[in-house]
Amino acid sequence: MKKLKRSARLVEMTQYLLFRPHSLIPLTTFADRYHSAKSSISEDLAIIKEVFEEEGLGELLTLAGAAGGVKFIPKVPRAASLQIITKLCRQLEQPERILPGEYLYMSDILGQPAVLNEIGKMFASAFSGRDIDVVMTVETKGIPLAYATASFLNLPVVIVRRDSRVTEGSAVSINYVSGSNKRIQTMSLARRALKEESRVLIIDDFMRAGGTIHGMMDLLKEFRATVKGVGVFVESGEVQEHLVEDYISLARLSGVDSKNRQINVHPGNYFDAEENE
Amino acid sequence: MKKLKRSARLVEMTQYLLFRPHSLIPLTTFADRYHSAKSSISEDLAIIKEVFEEEGLGELLTLAGAAGGVKFIPKVPRAASLQIITKLCRQLEQPERILPGEYLYMSDILGQPAVLNEIGKMFASAFSGRDIDVVMTVETKGIPLAYATASFLNLPVVIVRRDSRVTEGSAVSINYVSGSNKRIQTMSLARRALKEESRVLIIDDFMRAGGTIHGMMDLLKEFRATVKGVGVFVESGEVQEHLVEDYISLARLSGVDSKNRQINVHPGNYFDAEENE
Repeated sequence: MKKLKRSARLVEMTQYLLFRPHSLIPLTTFADRYHSAKSSISEDLAIIKEVFEEEGLGELLTLAGAAGGVKFIPKVPRAASLQIITKLCRQLEQPERILPGEYLYMSDILGQPAVLNEIGKMFASAFSGRDIDVVMTVETKGIPLAYATASFLNLPVVIVRRDSRVTEGSAVSINYVSGSNKRIQTMSLARRALKEESRVLIIDDFMRAGGTIHGMMDLLKEFRATVKGVGVFVESGEVQEHLVEDYISLARLSGVDSKNRQINVHPGNYFDAEENE
Repeated sequence: MKKLKRSARLVEMTQYLLFRPHSLIPLTTFADRYHSAKSSISEDLAIIKEVFEEEGLGELLTLAGAAGGVKFIPKVPRAASLQIITKLCRQLEQPERILPGEYLYMSDILGQPAVLNEIGKMFASAFSGRDIDVVMTVETKGIPLAYATASFLNLPVVIVRRDSRVTEGSAVSINYVSGSNKRIQTMSLARRALKEESRVLIIDDFMRAGGTIHGMMDLLKEFRATVKGVGVFVESGEVQEHLVEDYISLARLSGVDSKNRQINVHPGNYFDAEENE
């Protein structure tokens, strides 16, 4: 790349960092790339850092020393997330979303890349620093959420299949009882899809009693994997007993009145925390 | 937002544009946002435009007049895409990927957000300007590709289900014959998921004879929708007759020799075109 002026360099570095979250980039990478002195690069990074922080895009960590460099950690302030979630809650409360079995139609909302980006950033902020190897979900509706989250954490995604006939080589299958209809169901994961002893973040779109997520946890035991976190977009608040204790929800559904077609959706337990940021 | 210096403004505008592809942003939006003169904003945009073009990120279109503004169109030069695809082809040729039925194991590759981003940018470049309303795919493995593409085109995604029991309200189901095993299968889409007369881009991970994609096209007729394009990541080159004529493939599989565990994967028809860019 040819030598760039500061102005062009700032544009270039901004896009470079945004597309490489959670990756350590040595200052020499930038210095070589732009034929610039490290001191100039440091000044550029200070400007970028300030804007990223003011904009609520995330942190720019600078690590000193020989193995040092800079790392972009996407992190949305909780107050900004709450604003977005509150708007989504109003959308989710539209009565025409109520489906048989007290499910909610959310495919239109989860079909919008801009919304997924926001949700992905929230999960990435919530689970940042938990030392995760891989993001896992079960088909179908959790898949876009898992990818959005993984892209901000710079992690691969593993998709558990509900269909054990899928031919991806030898697979591990488990049976689980879905919380909603008490039916026994099967989920499976190809042996090659997940390394043994991986540290896993589970993401899903909806959780009622947690049967499906509990099933994923059982499946993970077969891979001697560790669950480092569970994130669901919407949880049902109308559940007596959860099969999953430790999870983060972004929204909580309550008071589903199918007859009068009324529902209440509130921000989830991610926003319960007292601490201000 | 407080008044920003040019350096900070460049960082801010770069991230703003990158996260809003295919959206027309009036210059006044930037001028108001940064309390800057429109002439300064224009100068900033000229710098950003130059870097985006040199970096192969895409075009920055400037539309003059009252309804004017600036629009970021992600567009990767075909030569850069070819380099990336060639590398992926070598990975796809690893013999342990051969699955029964002459399928290829690709879940690890399609599980990497960075790879998906690149493929999404390629499809977005290939289908840019086709006047599309929505990106459609069928579960499961095409979903991440569809979202990656949609995010660079700023479009919503619609997922066709293989399971007609899914409860998303009234749905349209069709039967189709899968090209690979000649079995009759079902796919369905909720009425509310797609507006009548939508212009649709179909994206999928793998195409053999095209039975599944042809099924999606049949389904779209029920919604009086128009197919504006078909993009597949990998096509099988070992097919006598395609049910789908007009499509773009990024890679092409040939010479699958299950016995000797050998396969050849080459760049797809997207790279056949003579014209240089």
